[in-house]
Amino acid sequence: MTDLLYEGKAKRIYSTDKTEVLRVAYKDDATAYNGEKHAILTGKGKLNNAISTIIFEMLTNAGVDNHFIERISETEQLVKAVSIIPIEVVVRNLAAGSMAKRLGLEEGRPLKQPIVEFYYKRDDLGDPLITVDHVYDLELATPEEVETLQSNALKVNDILTNYFSGFNIKLVDFKLEFGRSKETGEVLLADEVSPDTCRLWDKTTGERLDKDVFRRNIGNLQDAYGKLLERIGG
Amino acid sequence: MTDLLYEGKAKRIYSTDKTEVLRVAYKDDATAYNGEKHAILTGKGKLNNAISTIIFEMLTNAGVDNHFIERISETEQLVKAVSIIPIEVVVRNLAAGSMAKRLGLEEGRPLKQPIVEFYYKRDDLGDPLITVDHVYDLELATPEEVETLQSNALKVNDILTNYFSGFNIKLVDFKLEFGRSKETGEVLLADEVSPDTCRLWDKTTGERLDKDVFRRNIGNLQDAYGKLLERIGG
Repeated sequence: MTDLLYEGKAKRIYSTDKTEVLRVAYKDDATAYNGEKHAILTGKGKLNNAISTIIFEMLTNAGVDNHFIERISETEQLVKAVSIIPIEVVVRNLAAGSMAKRLGLEEGRPLKQPIVEFYYKRDDLGDPLITVDHVYDLELATPEEVETLQSNALKVNDILTNYFSGFNIKLVDFKLEFGRSKETGEVLLADEVSPDTCRLWDKTTGERLDKDVFRRNIGNLQDAYGKLLERIGG
Repeated sequence: MTDLLYEGKAKRIYSTDKTEVLRVAYKDDATAYNGEKHAILTGKGKLNNAISTIIFEMLTNAGVDNHFIERISETEQLVKAVSIIPIEVVVRNLAAGSMAKRLGLEEGRPLKQPIVEFYYKRDDLGDPLITVDHVYDLELATPEEVETLQSNALKVNDILTNYFSGFNIKLVDFKLEFGRSKETGEVLLADEVSPDTCRLWDKTTGERLDKDVFRRNIGNLQDAYGKLLERIGG
């Protein structure tokens, strides 16, 4: 009745009895460096489901079109069915991670303005950085859709930056995915928004509240995600 | 009297008794993969000096502002002094080399339209692909200069594509560097245009007439460059 449609590194996607609705089940898997590093961290799925739910509900209230419908269990939520646009849309406020390394910048160096980057969602290629010209050549999205991705990414950045700032947390960078609604064709924010996909630093102490604690072995992931969830009121 | 100002992988740059003029001496060194592969190939400097001279003279006649003044010996030329903008401007007509690999495209697949890419000229970082937003954040060039780089790159592509086509040669891709004139500040095409910096394929046989014969060990570099020079009338 409900088939597994897709299994990603951190989530499984199932059909439901409505074609326009999918069920997302968050897994306890943590991966980094394109799957080279992997662990099962009990409770991670529950934490990300809770955090992503809070953030999507906040984004809905802020007027961001997205796929979220409702959380239905500790590890599951219902979402609108979309076909994912194979572009990872990254927004950066400070240099960190791959960008800092690639451009030889000190981690934490503020950028002059928020930068939107596109990465080609292809695990087999290591999700390479691409330019808008590559997007068109690969026919990943239309010029209209690229405009929507860029403007929505910056809008979400404004909203999330203010939101996390209210909890004394700095939004360093984050990754978004968008999809085309199977029902209406419109571009919706999809996937998840969680400490798996955001870099979040305590503004006072610099403490990492995101997946870097796992990537870099600098703490316990569940503790960090739990602290984050508590701070945003979950 | 004339000092060595800069030594690159394939050229040395010397001062002259005029501050606005430099002397370029082409070396016999061939390098690939960011210097990992290296050889001394006797006669290479002479060939590139001859080829680059012919092409710069042709580009001057076609109205492309550039640094070239004159060839003064088998391996040397005089150029206008510029301060190099640290961006490698790559124009591609077909997928090949690093782009084909990065995006999982078959080598030789035509692009829907010519694509201009910017790479950050930093050997220590492996010359990474960058977007225009990175150019501004790193303060590598102004928006006006970026516009000049892009439009000049496409103009040079049109001119070179037609030029090589007349010799039954396909221009697959090429790398340009630009500099700010020390005398006037204007942006000039600089560096070299040679089989070190272009991919050139015989339209009929597909024979490589460029540095890929060295990179990929598929022939003798001097033979390939010699054939190219002969075909363009040197």
